[in-house]
Amino acid sequence: MKIEFTPIGIIHTPFKTINNMPIQPTADKESEGWIEIFDEYSAGLADLNGFSHIYLIFHLHKTSSYKLSVVPFLDTVERGIFATRSPSRPNPVGLSVVKLVSVSGNIIKIQGLDILDETPLIDIKPFVPMFED
Amino acid sequence: MKIEFTPIGIIHTPFKTINNMPIQPTADKESEGWIEIFDEYSAGLADLNGFSHIYLIFHLHKTSSYKLSVVPFLDTVERGIFATRSPSRPNPVGLSVVKLVSVSGNIIKIQGLDILDETPLIDIKPFVPMFED
Repeated sequence: MKIEFTPIGIIHTPFKTINNMPIQPTADKESEGWIEIFDEYSAGLADLNGFSHIYLIFHLHKTSSYKLSVVPFLDTVERGIFATRSPSRPNPVGLSVVKLVSVSGNIIKIQGLDILDETPLIDIKPFVPMFED
Repeated sequence: MKIEFTPIGIIHTPFKTINNMPIQPTADKESEGWIEIFDEYSAGLADLNGFSHIYLIFHLHKTSSYKLSVVPFLDTVERGIFATRSPSRPNPVGLSVVKLVSVSGNIIKIQGLDILDETPLIDIKPFVPMFED
């Protein structure tokens, strides 16, 4: 069974290659980018500007194959892929929490990125801290 | 352009219909379920048991169409779909943070669910609290 998604927009960031990208969004809270939401979906952005942070779910579009074990950045031993944030996953889907700066028409300005430029966006969800325990 | 994913496993939960499902995982922290990871991907689970919580990214497989505005549960006015957790999204992809109870072979026991039974799993990522600011 296949699951098929269609991009709802494109994420624009300063990171043209994986090499100059922060490993975690927390590693570069000042990095700025913007999302272009395709016109047909922009009505879905209403009320989003009430949130301080949003989840972005996106296609790791530069990933062409996967491994079940990887040596993560800053690590020295192999780890199971699902215990890491490596892009070499069976399904190349990325998840980031970013700071929402502004929403204007179909353009969303964001801050605190670890996403490659020109990344296809799959979904946006409001970020609400869930765990206080 | 289409993005195509293949399920890596199936999520089993007590929730057979949307009607008896908690709206947020925090609404029912005691609800228990389990994930069957397909054999070809189970090696990727190594080291996962070091985490207290995991992100699950899954297919909202009972969603057949989308709306750009919805009236969320416990709300009275329409909101843009991306400001809500409604399943009626342009791309029916779900995201939950659940408590990791145990990993044994290709079976993951989890707690604190808001996911329908028999949901196809797309990805697992370690949950590490990112925002202390």
